Amino acid sequence: MSTTKGITKRNEDYAAWYQDLVKKADLAENSAVRGCMVIKPYGYAIWEKMRDALDRMFKDTGHTNAYFPLFIPKSYLSKEASHVEGFAKECAVVTHYRLKNAPDGNGVVVDPEAKLEEELIVRPTSETVIWSTYRNWIQSYRDLPLLINQWANVVRWEMRTRLFLRTAEFLWQEGHTAHATAEEAIEETLQMLEIYAEFAEKYMALPVIKGVKTPNERFAGAVDTYCIEALMQDGKALQAGTSHFLGQNFAKAFDVKFTGKDGKEEYVWGTSWGVSTRLMGALIMAHSDDDGLVLPPKLAPIQVVIVPIFKGEEGLQKISQVVNSKIIPELRQAGLTVKYDNRDTERPGFKFAEWELKGVPVRLAIGERDLQNQTVEIARRDTKEKSTVPMENIARIIKNLLDEIQKNIFQKALEFRQKHTTRVDTWKEFEEILLQKGGFVEAHWDGTTQTEEIIKEKTKATIRCIPLQNPQEKGKCILTGKPSSQRVLFAVAY
Amino acid sequence: MSTTKGITKRNEDYAAWYQDLVKKADLAENSAVRGCMVIKPYGYAIWEKMRDALDRMFKDTGHTNAYFPLFIPKSYLSKEASHVEGFAKECAVVTHYRLKNAPDGNGVVVDPEAKLEEELIVRPTSETVIWSTYRNWIQSYRDLPLLINQWANVVRWEMRTRLFLRTAEFLWQEGHTAHATAEEAIEETLQMLEIYAEFAEKYMALPVIKGVKTPNERFAGAVDTYCIEALMQDGKALQAGTSHFLGQNFAKAFDVKFTGKDGKEEYVWGTSWGVSTRLMGALIMAHSDDDGLVLPPKLAPIQVVIVPIFKGEEGLQKISQVVNSKIIPELRQAGLTVKYDNRDTERPGFKFAEWELKGVPVRLAIGERDLQNQTVEIARRDTKEKSTVPMENIARIIKNLLDEIQKNIFQKALEFRQKHTTRVDTWKEFEEILLQKGGFVEAHWDGTTQTEEIIKEKTKATIRCIPLQNPQEKGKCILTGKPSSQRVLFAVAY
Repeated sequence: MSTTKGITKRNEDYAAWYQDLVKKADLAENSAVRGCMVIKPYGYAIWEKMRDALDRMFKDTGHTNAYFPLFIPKSYLSKEASHVEGFAKECAVVTHYRLKNAPDGNGVVVDPEAKLEEELIVRPTSETVIWSTYRNWIQSYRDLPLLINQWANVVRWEMRTRLFLRTAEFLWQEGHTAHATAEEAIEETLQMLEIYAEFAEKYMALPVIKGVKTPNERFAGAVDTYCIEALMQDGKALQAGTSHFLGQNFAKAFDVKFTGKDGKEEYVWGTSWGVSTRLMGALIMAHSDDDGLVLPPKLAPIQVVIVPIFKGEEGLQKISQVVNSKIIPELRQAGLTVKYDNRDTERPGFKFAEWELKGVPVRLAIGERDLQNQTVEIARRDTKEKSTVPMENIARIIKNLLDEIQKNIFQKALEFRQKHTTRVDTWKEFEEILLQKGGFVEAHWDGTTQTEEIIKEKTKATIRCIPLQNPQEKGKCILTGKPSSQRVLFAVAY
Repeated sequence: MSTTKGITKRNEDYAAWYQDLVKKADLAENSAVRGCMVIKPYGYAIWEKMRDALDRMFKDTGHTNAYFPLFIPKSYLSKEASHVEGFAKECAVVTHYRLKNAPDGNGVVVDPEAKLEEELIVRPTSETVIWSTYRNWIQSYRDLPLLINQWANVVRWEMRTRLFLRTAEFLWQEGHTAHATAEEAIEETLQMLEIYAEFAEKYMALPVIKGVKTPNERFAGAVDTYCIEALMQDGKALQAGTSHFLGQNFAKAFDVKFTGKDGKEEYVWGTSWGVSTRLMGALIMAHSDDDGLVLPPKLAPIQVVIVPIFKGEEGLQKISQVVNSKIIPELRQAGLTVKYDNRDTERPGFKFAEWELKGVPVRLAIGERDLQNQTVEIARRDTKEKSTVPMENIARIIKNLLDEIQKNIFQKALEFRQKHTTRVDTWKEFEEILLQKGGFVEAHWDGTTQTEEIIKEKTKATIRCIPLQNPQEKGKCILTGKPSSQRVLFAVAY
């Protein structure tokens, strides 16, 4: 069962709804290469808006971009002991550097004589290759801090993939910074967490909880992993970004030392932090509905679509004259992105449905009557409300409306999260809530990895994070009954 | 022998000068992975400016960005016969998808059980994977034209690499468009050639010759390859961008057909076009001198550097007060990128040399006397000329100066090219000019690949292109004496 647009309804099959939406809204599709996606122009345009906003925020806080190699020598991965355990296993391995014509004349085969002495790994993340480079860049405290970010593709060989959420190849940014003191590196780690949270909330209209991961969920090679966690409409959590305090782990693994002001040599302190095209999945799942995407105006590739309601070619011309000479220039002047859908091959109803599917925040419809009355019909995507407004001051009206939509989408997601965050104190309640309601569950935990793993086995729920500024309160672990000093945030997660 | 900055002089060893410059100016360096470079922040900042300018030009002509997989199934490469001959040979081959702990406990080894059924090639270019995708996107004439560009990394296993000019991994953009008619596809091919030429001349201040390649130098799989060719200061040519008319070659290889307005099915017509980080090499080699980079203002990450000439902390404070409250705000207001080098650890002479090395177009120096006189000393990087100007209207003065520098750099490169373009009519002259003067040589050629190859063997010179709108004139091939109807452009090339 599905809507007329061919999108499964959320309450029928949430996973199918998501997949339908990604395909029908032309965001992405699977490629012929297992686990690798094609990001289609409309999806990529949203990603570009995300990237540009984040890039500005990074640069405003003193970071610069650079580019490091796609390939990592195999031996690098094992230099940081816990890193290799977390990352080395599932990755694309380059073993040869040449093909040759097949002896039977049928296509090409790998040339066995072109075997690499040491295999190369397609980067699953770049700490190792970057810290091996930093070794040559850092000698003195004057070379610090080093505040570098990279926009790149990475590959992690995933067995079960889902468009945007989990793909073998994905796009991301990875920041890698080096500092003279632990304090400064921790400050940087938390600053980037704040930037991610601000980006999620202000641009994606996605409320997030900032917290720190348990040791079990830490990034392989980090001393501490901080994260932002968001809630999707199906009650599952999604980790939307991570920021790692690396301590001196990678500096020690790659021998990166600096001479301080006092002339003493010390290992450098590091951080790394990243967000990826996974954010596209979060954006889609947090706001959209059974009719299609709902995009926050700040990330919508098209903010306003104009649909003429006309009879005959002459009717279209009359409307187009006003749209092209007055409405579009005024909206563009105000900095808005506008599309005029003047196709004469499709009916207005078809166009309305199409732009709803694509999540355009505001639709203007203009008919002959509107021309006479100097009015425009405005429909907002988030609430589906319509109103007729004077053509005069149209830019100001729409600008205000887009601000309101941006706020409303955030508010709606925030209320959903609040409704789906439950405090529980017993195991029975814990299991029931996860099964029936989902969402975030605030519960006491005895602080051991063992308990965490048993809970995961029994319920699939994991500790998403220990929220920052978590209130301290005495309680008992929901599973073991052992004493606990604070609640942590559980959820079943993507 | 080298200058005080540690840069070899151009007339001593041009190749060493280039390499010194790339390293000393912090543009890029070799990585631990053979042939793969690290693009350092200052180099990447220049590349970002190039990318942003090109991206705007692509979007202004109706193109959108998308993203296609890094990996290409091996079998795809052999689907277009001439494509595989040109590309399949030297490339990175992924054969496995997992590592495991070494049995001896020492690091990791490739897991032999995780062998791919079909090997994957790291894309050397994306025609094959993109046309295999277009097959699903194109059914009718209404789906055309498809105007898509991708910014990506690609890998071609090169034996001899040079930073930016020839590296195993490099960054580029590749446009891939699909059209209903050959005429439209040719028009697109030429439009993109124009855009590349405009970008080279207006942004890079690099005069280029637009032309078409001989069959021998064509892109593997193209019907026609157009190019822009530039001349470097050592008299060698550099291909700075190519635009290919693919005919129906890839449409046929991947079975991409469309139904026309007349209801008939036909294969789609294609183009592809690209420029890469190689442009960085062209930019450096075209303008720079023995003291370092000379950057055109439109691509300089820092357009103006301000150096205070002070005695003691109090002196610095007095100057900083004026710089921070008046000069910097006025320059930024005017849209200029400004750096205030107020380090108290380095002397002015050191700073002057450093910013010269980095190619900052304009340097301002301000001393106590200047404060009294309300003046500033201006030095331009291109001519090294200095002048003292009133502080009033500083933004306007510098904006005009930057325009002048942009024009002057272009003019200088154009004059160099004119001086190093020679018409020759005999083989003896041809050899002499190539040996003694270098540069472009306009000469008659009999039109055969055989002659082209003999000339290359004898002199290392290749036909860079047959210029567009080439004047037709009767003549005799410099090698064979056979009749020829036009001169073509020879040069030894990078």
